[in-house]
Amino acid sequence: MNRIELIELINKKQSFLCVGLDTDPNKLPDHLPKNAEGVLEFNKQIIDSTKEFAVSFKLNIAFYEALGIEGWKALEKTINYIPKDQALVIADAKRGDIGNTADQYAKAFFENLKADAITVNPYMGRDSVEPFLKYDNKWTIALGLTSNIGAIDIELMDLKNGRKVYEDAIDSIAKLGTIDNLMFVVGATKVEYFEKIRTIIPDHFLLIPGVGAQGGKLQDLQSAMNEDCGLLVNSSRQIIYASKGVDFAEQAAVQASVLQRQMAEMLK
Amino acid sequence: MNRIELIELINKKQSFLCVGLDTDPNKLPDHLPKNAEGVLEFNKQIIDSTKEFAVSFKLNIAFYEALGIEGWKALEKTINYIPKDQALVIADAKRGDIGNTADQYAKAFFENLKADAITVNPYMGRDSVEPFLKYDNKWTIALGLTSNIGAIDIELMDLKNGRKVYEDAIDSIAKLGTIDNLMFVVGATKVEYFEKIRTIIPDHFLLIPGVGAQGGKLQDLQSAMNEDCGLLVNSSRQIIYASKGVDFAEQAAVQASVLQRQMAEMLK
Repeated sequence: MNRIELIELINKKQSFLCVGLDTDPNKLPDHLPKNAEGVLEFNKQIIDSTKEFAVSFKLNIAFYEALGIEGWKALEKTINYIPKDQALVIADAKRGDIGNTADQYAKAFFENLKADAITVNPYMGRDSVEPFLKYDNKWTIALGLTSNIGAIDIELMDLKNGRKVYEDAIDSIAKLGTIDNLMFVVGATKVEYFEKIRTIIPDHFLLIPGVGAQGGKLQDLQSAMNEDCGLLVNSSRQIIYASKGVDFAEQAAVQASVLQRQMAEMLK
Repeated sequence: MNRIELIELINKKQSFLCVGLDTDPNKLPDHLPKNAEGVLEFNKQIIDSTKEFAVSFKLNIAFYEALGIEGWKALEKTINYIPKDQALVIADAKRGDIGNTADQYAKAFFENLKADAITVNPYMGRDSVEPFLKYDNKWTIALGLTSNIGAIDIELMDLKNGRKVYEDAIDSIAKLGTIDNLMFVVGATKVEYFEKIRTIIPDHFLLIPGVGAQGGKLQDLQSAMNEDCGLLVNSSRQIIYASKGVDFAEQAAVQASVLQRQMAEMLK
């Protein structure tokens, strides 16, 4: 899915919601088996019930890898189940390694799993990011500034030039790609930093986790929007675990629709 | 495998060699099938022929993920094939994500795959590393300074305090664990940096990739050794692709034994 198609989808659905499928077998509704089979069934129902309100689904790869081979199968089947013209599929893998290894990860997620996008960790620099950028109509989503406590350890270090590590990191990674193949992860609880980030990358899409369970508020993101919207806002736990009953998918849709309506207001 | 056992192994084998199983189906010897089955057969023969000379095997996870479900099976079977009392098994996964996600990766690699160690990317800071440190007798190997060209983009940025990003990164990550559960990745082609690194972490083991194909020389590492040896030096391509013929395992053993003899000299 390219940028024009993504923007069209956002306008059509009046939403920039990404539903995070961080599906943990231990948190499944009581009536579903606590295994990879249960995860797949859960994901299918969540996709069916929320796809009207979401423009993207983000699969947190760790949750599938933790289930071994069966988890990898559930991952593959979940991705195949998502209607590709109705949602951008993000593999939230946060991979990052030297060129010949990054090539392999790109193959795994873009070619085999057919994800539209992958999150990557830029710590190792340019050659850990470039292999992903070689694919047409695929997206590389580099970590910029995250919303977790550990962000202070490296991302927020003070540089000699007066900036923070994440600012120069975003700057140098942005030069490797374009607004058509590169996005950045920016944590929603760091609203005070959005202004700075938008001076560096005014036109890129930002993937924003941390709304809901991680503490960020949707309305605070208005100033981070650009004329193409420029945001994908992820919500995982608040949506997918809205109910532990048989009505879990229905309740997920309720939560997703609440966010969608707020987003429609913001898009005006 | 704990630190005492690792040191005993190094002394017994007179080696600190780690053989990197970055097994690419396209680079297999002509007589082996170019698929996951071929990869497994190749790995088994490499393990058999080099385990006498190596104290560790490092599996580059990307190469297995690129083969999908069959790759994951080959990964699992390769790890099961390695005699656990004769070698430290490193999952070279370079994972890094927030706490609840890192928990899942730890489960995937330590519990399910039964690796002894995993490489992690510290960009997101403390809570992306800590979940791995909770496991007894397991190792977390954090990226410190890598040997690729992209190291200049973030790792080598100049900080306000006069140090480089990698120095403060190593410093803050080192505080999260101990010399018994934490190692650092340091690229072998950055020999000029070893002195600095050893002032920060004199006692930790360092995992050193980049000897051989990536350009580093073994003898240059003498100054990075400590009284417990303190090094694991990885070689992948130079060993595993020493021959494309039916004698590939034999030739791998020749290459591994050359390195082992040089290491024995250095251990004196």
